Amino acid sequence: MRAAVEAAKADVCALHAYLPAAELVAWTSGNVSARVPGADLMVIKPSGLEYADLTPASMVVCDLYGNRVEGDYAPSSDTGSHAYVYRHRPDVNGVVHTHSPYATSWAARAEAIPCCLTAIADEFGGDIPVGPFALIGDEAIGEGIVETLEGSNSPAVLMRNHGVFTIGASARAAVKAAVMVEDAARTVHLARLLGPVTRLDDADIASLHDRYTNVYGQKGAK
Amino acid sequence: MRAAVEAAKADVCALHAYLPAAELVAWTSGNVSARVPGADLMVIKPSGLEYADLTPASMVVCDLYGNRVEGDYAPSSDTGSHAYVYRHRPDVNGVVHTHSPYATSWAARAEAIPCCLTAIADEFGGDIPVGPFALIGDEAIGEGIVETLEGSNSPAVLMRNHGVFTIGASARAAVKAAVMVEDAARTVHLARLLGPVTRLDDADIASLHDRYTNVYGQKGAK
Amino acid sequence: MRAAVEAAKADVCALHAYLPAAELVAWTSGNVSARVPGADLMVIKPSGLEYADLTPASMVVCDLYGNRVEGDYAPSSDTGSHAYVYRHRPDVNGVVHTHSPYATSWAARAEAIPCCLTAIADEFGGDIPVGPFALIGDEAIGEGIVETLEGSNSPAVLMRNHGVFTIGASARAAVKAAVMVEDAARTVHLARLLGPVTRLDDADIASLHDRYTNVYGQKGAK
Amino acid sequence: MRAAVEAAKADVCALHAYLPAAELVAWTSGNVSARVPGADLMVIKPSGLEYADLTPASMVVCDLYGNRVEGDYAPSSDTGSHAYVYRHRPDVNGVVHTHSPYATSWAARAEAIPCCLTAIADEFGGDIPVGPFALIGDEAIGEGIVETLEGSNSPAVLMRNHGVFTIGASARAAVKAAVMVEDAARTVHLARLLGPVTRLDDADIASLHDRYTNVYGQKGAK
Repeated sequence: MRAAVEAAKADVCALHAYLPAAELVAWTSGNVSARVPGADLMVIKPSGLEYADLTPASMVVCDLYGNRVEGDYAPSSDTGSHAYVYRHRPDVNGVVHTHSPYATSWAARAEAIPCCLTAIADEFGGDIPVGPFALIGDEAIGEGIVETLEGSNSPAVLMRNHGVFTIGASARAAVKAAVMVEDAARTVHLARLLGPVTRLDDADIASLHDRYTNVYGQKGAK
Repeated sequence: MRAAVEAAKADVCALHAYLPAAELVAWTSGNVSARVPGADLMVIKPSGLEYADLTPASMVVCDLYGNRVEGDYAPSSDTGSHAYVYRHRPDVNGVVHTHSPYATSWAARAEAIPCCLTAIADEFGGDIPVGPFALIGDEAIGEGIVETLEGSNSPAVLMRNHGVFTIGASARAAVKAAVMVEDAARTVHLARLLGPVTRLDDADIASLHDRYTNVYGQKGAK
Repeated sequence: MRAAVEAAKADVCALHAYLPAAELVAWTSGNVSARVPGADLMVIKPSGLEYADLTPASMVVCDLYGNRVEGDYAPSSDTGSHAYVYRHRPDVNGVVHTHSPYATSWAARAEAIPCCLTAIADEFGGDIPVGPFALIGDEAIGEGIVETLEGSNSPAVLMRNHGVFTIGASARAAVKAAVMVEDAARTVHLARLLGPVTRLDDADIASLHDRYTNVYGQKGAK
Repeated sequence: MRAAVEAAKADVCALHAYLPAAELVAWTSGNVSARVPGADLMVIKPSGLEYADLTPASMVVCDLYGNRVEGDYAPSSDTGSHAYVYRHRPDVNGVVHTHSPYATSWAARAEAIPCCLTAIADEFGGDIPVGPFALIGDEAIGEGIVETLEGSNSPAVLMRNHGVFTIGASARAAVKAAVMVEDAARTVHLARLLGPVTRLDDADIASLHDRYTNVYGQKGAK
């Protein structure tokens, strides 16, 4: 139990380095959390600390209602919403939130990103959907995330006038989805500026997503 | 007194590193200043020196009329305007100036950035306003800053055909505002390129700004 | 033979560092391969590994039908298509695939990049062409690459709704083409956003491409 | 004489580091040269070498007709044009060439950058002009540079369908102008995408340029 908590703190701390490296965040505007395996606990970023100052010891351990159970700092403002996702999605073990600029620009217009690239079919299995507007600080955003991603292949949701949330079977997978949603948002933005784009056929999307989910990477290695 | 001056010189020198890191400046086109606590003095960047060459010893100490009182270099061309802000806004202890590209593009059109994202409501508490055009070198820009931000929640002002000035209760807070105004300017720019954006309701803006000001970060930590 | 394989593994591993450095890839979304001189073999990136984790030992050796003959990892999903290119283009010794954002935005619109800059004439000798849409995982993409580049001066092809493939007399040359196609795609994108661009005359394109191919660099050094 | 040549080689080599750092170049697509004080000689980048591989010893010394007089490598393809500038502009001691993307996008449309920002008035003293199209490899580009900048305050010229050349009283000043022209091109591009911009009054431009030329930096330091 202690080992699982400490491992999650180290993992969540290290994964935050991807956010500025991939230019997904400004100042302190994004956070990563992970479920602690085998416990009703999660680990999340402390609120308002700069990424360069994070250490495993500064991570905050909360229960799945967002109450702090360990740590010196107040947890992220988004803790209640992360917690809501973990309570309602037992398959989810990692959640990431950013205001990455291209993805957030789609969220500002409340426009889904159309599945017009093989890379979107691969990672998102269809269009990247828009979730509702909600105020920050309680669980309302979490409800919007869970409702929007219900029955979707997408690990990412564009929260209206706000930013991006991604989920994953691990915190690393959620970070990857946060990187990929910004990349997709940017490329489709650029394409659309000079003309229309064509969505892929549903059969091609299904085929690409299936291969990516089941063959890509080292899953298919013998 | 000596200790406060030296601390301010070290602080202002170190904070300049954020400007190129966040891609807010080209060559030497931005500066940070801080009020020296308990004195009618400010510390500011020397004019025209490259960021990589700055040291605490190269910082310039001026009175609040922009006259150099200590230092080997001529102070920034914007010193008179920083000084004007300190004289007229006793709550302000840091001022930052940049020509960050997205924010300056709004300034070039003399167009305020609408409060259409939660991150803008959080940090700026409303639209980010436009200030008047003024020549560089005396206090005219300072007058425009003070006048425009009078009664505004925003710590940032887009100076017409020029660039951005931000203020803060500390120099660090002003640097943060400079980073956040560029991020907001960029995201709203991107959104607007492909369609209209909706401003948040005033009640939501007030609620978000209040929470961010009073709860976000470690203020709420017990 | 062993020495040639080991040299190719070291070379292909090292060349992958250019992809994130030039911001051509997100997460693991690009790959480099090289033909092993004097053998019907190629070396390619393992599937799904992050760039920072690549070592020469993790590179995968395949035959020119994409079958793994050496290595601990499953090869890139694109291996079959790289292999197809090597079988059909004996002059090609390196292949690179990316989803670099500006180039991919042209691919998403299925629009060739017009040869309106001297740098495009130099490196590509004409317009940068669009290839067909094809699913990932077998040789279909390779067929599209070979067919599209038949008789073209361009070492790059924009694969519809997918991304970019480049070829070269060496893997380094293919990497260079991948860097240059993104640069060209970006500059022409920016130009076109604010007005039309004029294609260069065919005679000027031919003259520039000839000089670049035969004189530029250290070829002309005495 | 030897000392002046060696100093110029070290200086030109070091200044090349600014080009990739400011994202002005892709692969090897830009070069810096400097006049050797007190001699009819110039130092320039070798053709086609990557920036990370440059050393003072690899720099090429040429006469002012572009003939190599010292060095192991063939000089840049643009040597004849740099040389032409030095012969016809005795006040110029440094020349820089890049294909920086925003500036080159204006060059692709053959559109001058209007002086609508104080930073443009400061550095360029007016609009940034467009020069003619010319083939690469002889002096034709140099002629276009000299002719276009005749009587202009601008140290930068946008060469049609090609890229940017900047000049300066030192190679460092020419590098600065190359950084600033890209910054100006980007900001005005962004502004123009969402609406028209207003050019500054000629009197304001003259006043800003005069102050920047005569007071900015450490010139005014006592």
